[in-house]
Amino acid sequence: MRKIGIIGLGHVGEMLANQLVMNGKVDELVLIDEKDQLAIAIQADLNDAQTVLATHTKIIIQDYAALVDADILITAFGKSALMKQQPMAELGNNYHQALQVGNKIFKSDFSGILINLTNPNEAITAVLQQQVGLPQKQVIGIGTVVETARLYHAIADAANVAAANVTGFVYGQHDGHQVFAWSTVRVNGQPLTVAINGHHLDQSQLKIKANLSNWYTLDGLGYNVSAVTAWTLRIITAIFADEQLALPVAIYQPQYATYISFPALIGRQGIGNLLLLKLYPLEEEEIKSAATTIKHQLDSLKNIKGE
Amino acid sequence: MRKIGIIGLGHVGEMLANQLVMNGKVDELVLIDEKDQLAIAIQADLNDAQTVLATHTKIIIQDYAALVDADILITAFGKSALMKQQPMAELGNNYHQALQVGNKIFKSDFSGILINLTNPNEAITAVLQQQVGLPQKQVIGIGTVVETARLYHAIADAANVAAANVTGFVYGQHDGHQVFAWSTVRVNGQPLTVAINGHHLDQSQLKIKANLSNWYTLDGLGYNVSAVTAWTLRIITAIFADEQLALPVAIYQPQYATYISFPALIGRQGIGNLLLLKLYPLEEEEIKSAATTIKHQLDSLKNIKGE
Amino acid sequence: MRKIGIIGLGHVGEMLANQLVMNGKVDELVLIDEKDQLAIAIQADLNDAQTVLATHTKIIIQDYAALVDADILITAFGKSALMKQQPMAELGNNYHQALQVGNKIFKSDFSGILINLTNPNEAITAVLQQQVGLPQKQVIGIGTVVETARLYHAIADAANVAAANVTGFVYGQHDGHQVFAWSTVRVNGQPLTVAINGHHLDQSQLKIKANLSNWYTLDGLGYNVSAVTAWTLRIITAIFADEQLALPVAIYQPQYATYISFPALIGRQGIGNLLLLKLYPLEEEEIKSAATTIKHQLDSLKNIKGE
Amino acid sequence: MRKIGIIGLGHVGEMLANQLVMNGKVDELVLIDEKDQLAIAIQADLNDAQTVLATHTKIIIQDYAALVDADILITAFGKSALMKQQPMAELGNNYHQALQVGNKIFKSDFSGILINLTNPNEAITAVLQQQVGLPQKQVIGIGTVVETARLYHAIADAANVAAANVTGFVYGQHDGHQVFAWSTVRVNGQPLTVAINGHHLDQSQLKIKANLSNWYTLDGLGYNVSAVTAWTLRIITAIFADEQLALPVAIYQPQYATYISFPALIGRQGIGNLLLLKLYPLEEEEIKSAATTIKHQLDSLKNIKGE
Repeated sequence: MRKIGIIGLGHVGEMLANQLVMNGKVDELVLIDEKDQLAIAIQADLNDAQTVLATHTKIIIQDYAALVDADILITAFGKSALMKQQPMAELGNNYHQALQVGNKIFKSDFSGILINLTNPNEAITAVLQQQVGLPQKQVIGIGTVVETARLYHAIADAANVAAANVTGFVYGQHDGHQVFAWSTVRVNGQPLTVAINGHHLDQSQLKIKANLSNWYTLDGLGYNVSAVTAWTLRIITAIFADEQLALPVAIYQPQYATYISFPALIGRQGIGNLLLLKLYPLEEEEIKSAATTIKHQLDSLKNIKGE
Repeated sequence: MRKIGIIGLGHVGEMLANQLVMNGKVDELVLIDEKDQLAIAIQADLNDAQTVLATHTKIIIQDYAALVDADILITAFGKSALMKQQPMAELGNNYHQALQVGNKIFKSDFSGILINLTNPNEAITAVLQQQVGLPQKQVIGIGTVVETARLYHAIADAANVAAANVTGFVYGQHDGHQVFAWSTVRVNGQPLTVAINGHHLDQSQLKIKANLSNWYTLDGLGYNVSAVTAWTLRIITAIFADEQLALPVAIYQPQYATYISFPALIGRQGIGNLLLLKLYPLEEEEIKSAATTIKHQLDSLKNIKGE
Repeated sequence: MRKIGIIGLGHVGEMLANQLVMNGKVDELVLIDEKDQLAIAIQADLNDAQTVLATHTKIIIQDYAALVDADILITAFGKSALMKQQPMAELGNNYHQALQVGNKIFKSDFSGILINLTNPNEAITAVLQQQVGLPQKQVIGIGTVVETARLYHAIADAANVAAANVTGFVYGQHDGHQVFAWSTVRVNGQPLTVAINGHHLDQSQLKIKANLSNWYTLDGLGYNVSAVTAWTLRIITAIFADEQLALPVAIYQPQYATYISFPALIGRQGIGNLLLLKLYPLEEEEIKSAATTIKHQLDSLKNIKGE
Repeated sequence: MRKIGIIGLGHVGEMLANQLVMNGKVDELVLIDEKDQLAIAIQADLNDAQTVLATHTKIIIQDYAALVDADILITAFGKSALMKQQPMAELGNNYHQALQVGNKIFKSDFSGILINLTNPNEAITAVLQQQVGLPQKQVIGIGTVVETARLYHAIADAANVAAANVTGFVYGQHDGHQVFAWSTVRVNGQPLTVAINGHHLDQSQLKIKANLSNWYTLDGLGYNVSAVTAWTLRIITAIFADEQLALPVAIYQPQYATYISFPALIGRQGIGNLLLLKLYPLEEEEIKSAATTIKHQLDSLKNIKGE
């Protein structure tokens, strides 16, 4: 039996719940939100929806105790808007919410894998890990997975190939100090310095295009939802199947002594080996710098009083 | 190749687009909204999402001309909130938007099946059919399909059986003059007057429960999204597969000389035979009365000036 | 985490494994067959297949001990050909295999739900329940579920409606003394005695047509595979989701003091309430007679020496 | 509307039909086999199966004329066993069948994309292209796609990473003169010469392991089915979605003046750009040699009289 919890039923939490239920991917789903009415609404709407499906998910709401035997827990509370646009105070609220939510998760005796989607992602993931008290390998954040997806999309468009044919990683800080590790990027195995299908791919243009995709989404919708949901579902699959899938999730990296987005192998136990690729020295520098940014951010958060 | 268009990218349009793309159900998807930025945002977000999928949908935006060879077109513009709560002026806006959208669809030479989700559903479906100029059997509305789903859900809960084991239909007017045709309802083939699993099912309580599900959803979310999306996907399947699936969609019913929610068989050509079940005389009366309500509503809409 | 075992990797076992893996429906799959090479082959082929999927199932082979924490176990050993065509000796082999397999399952400490697909279905299910030592509600057979599906198919074709609009049950003995309970059959809620879409449906012709579907399949393929697989997947879903779905599976019916195909509600604990519908007296008689057939068959099986 | 044809309903044709129908991936499916009974059987069994689905595919059998508006046609006639094990006479039969089947496809006015699964794959694909008279870019073979999948599987196992993290291509001749282009292989972007997760990957062992996967499958099952089906479904997706997905399918390569397995971009028009990667000189030599093998094979086939 697969059991998943989602804490925070904003756009992403709601979309995740929909995708999980509509595709019969989970047998029990625990939905928790600050607002009782919201959890009730989504439960009612999804149960109405399930009348048409040839699959069925049991939906439980507002019950932290039900997390005790959940395999995976998604935290998606707080605001999903781009960090840079948010006043520090708002981030502070996410921090204080993380303290409370983390404490409730701790009390629930949840012992599975926690995937945090709340921003600032690396910092909040670190806070949650502390509060929840699970080993670091069991508490991960979505990190720069979506930035990486956007890079694939930008390259695929520029080279007129399928996104599935692009590999590589963005490191660093989600929605902040992101590090495009060009040394890791390949299209059908070829480095970007080679012309791909006759196209010379320009790194700075690709980076702009990848970021534009985010800005377009935020400008029109006000929030990211589809990409983050799709990739979170992929992480869920990798965990259930013990797949050792490499993704640049937010993890504790001992080298930098902080949570940071860094490629690692994802399986049933959470994080397995980190993927220690040989990077350009400049990339190493940038990652180190991103680590510093994250640590400062975490310190700042702790000094903000919640509303 | 499957090609679907969606006009109106609010909560339902966005969720539909997500479900179609994430599950590889369609090869080309045309997304159209009043707001260019919204269409751009959803396209960008979905294309970022597709980098993780082993399926792929080509997403085209803001291009009515691209509808010319679409198999199915969904209209989901306007506000999705419960009709009863909306001032007539707001409904009038939906009416005026229907005139404009319908005209653009007409000019696109779209010749497939149009499924309207905009409210007031039966009236707007009628308006769209006139504007678009397609035969009545090719222009249908979601009608009381979701009310019917809610009834299944209520009965399944009360009798502790799977919703898949409940059959029957709600007729009449979506989000308005709905008619629960109890004479058509069965649980594992048994009428409600028989005790089901030892439970005596009370019609008035079931009706309250079915409606509550809607109110809970609107109260917490402000809009319906999951159930309407799931059942619209089911209608899409029935059309592609020429399935002759019976559902109480909004169709033109010659007996009442109006669009009304009435069970009919859905297939590749849109609506096939109407399902002429033997109903209780009281139910027949109520349906006739709902038809009158819809006709009056349509007249009223035509007298409202758009903003 | 979802974990399923399959014992017996003939056509049905192989197809089930394929559907479960290709659709990401299970996280761990234990495959067991008399022939080591067959299990190795299917594992290798499926793992090659999984390289293309965005989901992943861990495949374990030939390990009864791995069943200890499986949620569901499918037994599909022996020959799947129509019972009537098989010499009693061959059925005897299935019986002796059931004794052995049942004993190994017992030793594995499997404690989930066992779904038996091996024929003669009701008799072998009874034998397995005895050997495995699980409560009767946790050991079920596919029973007349597929006969029921064929009836839906025959009616849907004759009335030109979707099969999803047909309900009702075949009782009795799978591939043997089947009892078409016409009193339970409905098309969009209407009994067969009413003309459906202008068609008068003739019961004897429908029965012939339903059986023909089986004969065509056996004549051309030599075995049933798609329908039994599809409906077994549906039972699996009902179990995982605790759905209380009514299906005429092979269950222990105390009234007849034997395993027999009889509609019952399927959920996480296996069988819940039996569905005690009001049948025609003639139907009751036939079901009683089918029960006698099954009991005699079980006695005969016990007297056959295995090869 | 998606429409697909399958010619040849052996293990692979049957599995493909099952996967397409059970997952609602196609709206019309045309099934054709030498044996009428086999087509009738699979149609009957699949239609019985569809009674449980919330999707529906219309299944048409034994009708070449129905291919006229099909998007994609799969040829899977003849024996699927490993070429090396088959006497030349048997391959000759596949050749003569290709002439006949190709002629019937020609007469059907099919104008979509043909994917050939029949062996010897490159040679038969060439024959079919000639007979069917479609442009070369519209007639492709599965080629060394499955060999490539097996390589991914072998590497993933050896390095303890997800198969999704492996890229690269096997070129040459399917089930014959395969060329492992190690220069193209990457794990998370790293060449094999780098230790992956601490493992030094040995090319000759990986090649043995990849081939073993095939031998295990053939030894235990007698045929390949899951991997070839899964990857054919992936090609179908790439075509419907115009995805430009790079796979080493059997295509006409002008440089070698023959059909050969060579990576190329797959989209709606069939084959787009060939993927001209920089290979090791030795790999180039081997591919040239494989081309010669294929040309000789094609000549030999033409000299065999059919049974």
